[in-house]
Amino acid sequence: MQEFTLDERLERDSICLANLGLTQLRLMKDGRWPWLIAVPRRADVTEVFELAPLDQTMLTFEVNEAAKALKGVTGAEKINIAMIGNQVRQLHVHIVARFSGDPNWPGPIWGYGEPVFHTGDTMKMLAVKITEAMSDQ
Amino acid sequence: MQEFTLDERLERDSICLANLGLTQLRLMKDGRWPWLIAVPRRADVTEVFELAPLDQTMLTFEVNEAAKALKGVTGAEKINIAMIGNQVRQLHVHIVARFSGDPNWPGPIWGYGEPVFHTGDTMKMLAVKITEAMSDQ
Repeated sequence: MQEFTLDERLERDSICLANLGLTQLRLMKDGRWPWLIAVPRRADVTEVFELAPLDQTMLTFEVNEAAKALKGVTGAEKINIAMIGNQVRQLHVHIVARFSGDPNWPGPIWGYGEPVFHTGDTMKMLAVKITEAMSDQ
Repeated sequence: MQEFTLDERLERDSICLANLGLTQLRLMKDGRWPWLIAVPRRADVTEVFELAPLDQTMLTFEVNEAAKALKGVTGAEKINIAMIGNQVRQLHVHIVARFSGDPNWPGPIWGYGEPVFHTGDTMKMLAVKITEAMSDQ
């Protein structure tokens, strides 16, 4: 069985918050939207239905917990959740906090404009709040 | 308990393929991409984590079965799955077959350009194939 290795682009674009039961939960460095990704720690999976059935359920559980925490922390108007992967094929789930009037609202965030990176402080604060919110649930 | 009523815009933009255990599976009339939506038949749900835990699992199961069928029928290069809902707040899951070079590839489909409707025949054929593929699984 091949070992899980995080895709280089996902690694470069985000920082690790926690290793959950199945996924590695990460915070994107692009600060235009509060934006998490959850990456199942399984080798060679591109489509969600390639995961074993129990992993599919675990993924749902972990993504939905993260979404709930992100909504609580940010007060987002809407959470956007997506598995796209047209460019990075390693299965990963986007979990994004959206607000009326944010960049490209109400359109999608993917492929829109150029990243505007968090400062170290705002990223650290967001990381701490999300991690705390998830352990409180 | 309030009864489920399909959002008017979702109803206008798509046709019903099947009522599954939890969701109504629908085919979008926009033929630029083979594009399904799955709508949980629950009243007043906007975010996926508002569903009861068993419904969350059912949703995953039904969406992933539909995604697998769509991939099998279309030979898509990548399936895109998303819950956005910035405009239509009734919880619905997009399941889209994507191909290199399709409109806006590798970007997202949402908010891109104007719909190009299926002809009745291509839509009917796609509907039949997807329904058959799902009952074969």
